Amino acid sequence: MLDAQPARPVIGFLTDFGLDGAAATCKGVILSICRDAQIVDICHTVRKFAIRDGAYVLRSTLPYLPAGVHLAIVDPGVGTARQAVAVRTRRGDVLVGPDNGLLLPAAEALDGAVAARSLENRAYWLPSATSSTFHGRDVFAPVAGHLAARSASFDDLGPELSPGDLVRLPPLAASVHAGMLQTVVTYVDSFGNLRLAGGRSHLEAALGPLGTGLPLIVELGAGGAGPMREATTFGVTFGSVPQGASLLYVDSSGGLAFADNQGSAAARLGVTADCPVRISAT
Amino acid sequence: MLDAQPARPVIGFLTDFGLDGAAATCKGVILSICRDAQIVDICHTVRKFAIRDGAYVLRSTLPYLPAGVHLAIVDPGVGTARQAVAVRTRRGDVLVGPDNGLLLPAAEALDGAVAARSLENRAYWLPSATSSTFHGRDVFAPVAGHLAARSASFDDLGPELSPGDLVRLPPLAASVHAGMLQTVVTYVDSFGNLRLAGGRSHLEAALGPLGTGLPLIVELGAGGAGPMREATTFGVTFGSVPQGASLLYVDSSGGLAFADNQGSAAARLGVTADCPVRISAT
Amino acid sequence: MLDAQPARPVIGFLTDFGLDGAAATCKGVILSICRDAQIVDICHTVRKFAIRDGAYVLRSTLPYLPAGVHLAIVDPGVGTARQAVAVRTRRGDVLVGPDNGLLLPAAEALDGAVAARSLENRAYWLPSATSSTFHGRDVFAPVAGHLAARSASFDDLGPELSPGDLVRLPPLAASVHAGMLQTVVTYVDSFGNLRLAGGRSHLEAALGPLGTGLPLIVELGAGGAGPMREATTFGVTFGSVPQGASLLYVDSSGGLAFADNQGSAAARLGVTADCPVRISAT
Repeated sequence: MLDAQPARPVIGFLTDFGLDGAAATCKGVILSICRDAQIVDICHTVRKFAIRDGAYVLRSTLPYLPAGVHLAIVDPGVGTARQAVAVRTRRGDVLVGPDNGLLLPAAEALDGAVAARSLENRAYWLPSATSSTFHGRDVFAPVAGHLAARSASFDDLGPELSPGDLVRLPPLAASVHAGMLQTVVTYVDSFGNLRLAGGRSHLEAALGPLGTGLPLIVELGAGGAGPMREATTFGVTFGSVPQGASLLYVDSSGGLAFADNQGSAAARLGVTADCPVRISAT
Repeated sequence: MLDAQPARPVIGFLTDFGLDGAAATCKGVILSICRDAQIVDICHTVRKFAIRDGAYVLRSTLPYLPAGVHLAIVDPGVGTARQAVAVRTRRGDVLVGPDNGLLLPAAEALDGAVAARSLENRAYWLPSATSSTFHGRDVFAPVAGHLAARSASFDDLGPELSPGDLVRLPPLAASVHAGMLQTVVTYVDSFGNLRLAGGRSHLEAALGPLGTGLPLIVELGAGGAGPMREATTFGVTFGSVPQGASLLYVDSSGGLAFADNQGSAAARLGVTADCPVRISAT
Repeated sequence: MLDAQPARPVIGFLTDFGLDGAAATCKGVILSICRDAQIVDICHTVRKFAIRDGAYVLRSTLPYLPAGVHLAIVDPGVGTARQAVAVRTRRGDVLVGPDNGLLLPAAEALDGAVAARSLENRAYWLPSATSSTFHGRDVFAPVAGHLAARSASFDDLGPELSPGDLVRLPPLAASVHAGMLQTVVTYVDSFGNLRLAGGRSHLEAALGPLGTGLPLIVELGAGGAGPMREATTFGVTFGSVPQGASLLYVDSSGGLAFADNQGSAAARLGVTADCPVRISAT
């Protein structure tokens, strides 16, 4: 810090609201409560209703933001019985959002969830009548604003919940076989790169030591026509292979990924999240 | 406020400029004049030249932002005789933009327009030569910056205008008939939900009391092939109906809306703004 | 400034990262180092890997931002031998990004590049292990954050480079012929307007004085079927021509441009950057 002022509270903010005003409405609610908040838009173009995509982006991003109150809303069950929650992390963050699996992977990346509350204290909701379709504006944003402004304490938000009882997404994991790694596309990023379950250690357990240029076979999908089969190589950087060629690499989060150098593997192959992937040596 | 500093001025900002630099240019102009401005991007992907879409988003969003100077530019007539204006609202905002109907619905939602000025005082324009195609940069942004920095007063911006003389969009309204509400799509939101003219009271006037699950007939469009006719139900929350099913509901602004639960009704039906809609009981 | 506080440092930020979290990761890194930074998102939807597009937007935008540390990343060669650099401008900015031609046009628009450094001092990189695919997060963002926070000095970033040795994009220029200007599409903006190499002086040198309504012939492309030939007029503002008609005009940066009034010329004609264009009198 350059000055003696208390640091402005940073609020990371992720939704599937798109770009047409709903996220700004929430930001207005936050700023009306905590005028000096520094809101960092993480992503508002999460695939609609795709909780897992939102969870992936949140988990990848939040470790690089300062600890703070962070707000995440991908909420196909808005207005139904799903709970609204705040989750405290060991790093010192509070994550605010629906209890549908969106928040927990990020909490784990922030050294673990250590406490949770159900957002039932209406004193911290928007005072106007509450909609059944826009809890971002009416519940989540004002709670985040009050936490950031310290006009609400975590323990006052509502009944205590056990972090272990929060909703978890079914895990997507890599499984090691002799000479083959069975994995799955966990996320397609904006470049069309396929992020896969598992990391370097899984692939080494299946295939042995990995060196740049190691030839590999990647099989994607398992449709009626059988999987797409592609020869590729292990690379360290996109430039490890010629422009337009594919590579398997360890991405900037330590996970396995499959990409085209200066192209979109997802578009070329027509692959989306949840696509099964098998990686083997040639 | 948590500290004794004067609050940083909040400036809401909406355009149809898209995401490629023009909005940032305006933000740079504002920050060069008012370095501590807190600019809130409301939307920069308003459908190109769609004044009504911009007006809808601005009106929906601004009531949730702190009172401030707000800048809105959807301006197909840039460089022509249309006036550049500032409109003061009863809530205490000043809205800056073209006089083409974009600002007035928001002003009304902010308790009404109480004064207006024509932005003819070039002392508050950008000092460099003024373009004929980018008044956002050259006129609107510097005026907003000077107002936020208090280096310009509202009354000094240019000649007084009567708010009643400002350009208004033709209203889109619902009309109540016996057993039928005639309405129209006023906006398609980023989820593909159809926002309709009129509210609960209009629909109740036409059809009587509304309960969750009430079966309804929605007819959309009036093309050569006649309208699309669809059986739906009245719901309170998206989860009132099965995933993929449609519902008619009262949206978070109090207006009628038609949506698919976890889907895009607009994409499914091929419907855009201005589409006529008739709602009746089965 | 309204108060005695030092102005918050403004950091313009441009990438081709898209909207799904990578840019926010970089912003988190910056804010973790320089909490009071005011980050201005210039554009994160630069066409993937399109260095020239990024350079165009950066050059058009930065002159309107306050002098500061600005960060730009369109980096198809990430992880390869291309250098990471900081470039000081005569106006007082420091531009941080890859040495691939992205930064120099903006530096020239900011009164010229006066010094450059290779970012080899790992003291200012992210302390964690450095990826080979995300230098935005690991190298560029932390360097920008340290410069903005004044916890790094320009001269301490790494070895000195000569600005004249930095990578330059091949220039796109207009060439004047008797009665004809040969030019090229340098950028397609979000409205679908075609920005062209050269300015008013080039066109006047070729065709003589330009008046609103002057009839012109524009030929675009040079494919096997020959160029598209279109009659248009010179205009000052989009409204100089009827809605849907095309015009040639001098854009807000002083460059020649070709547009449809309230339409997308690029979509109508199927034209992209680098398309050759010939302009002549009728």
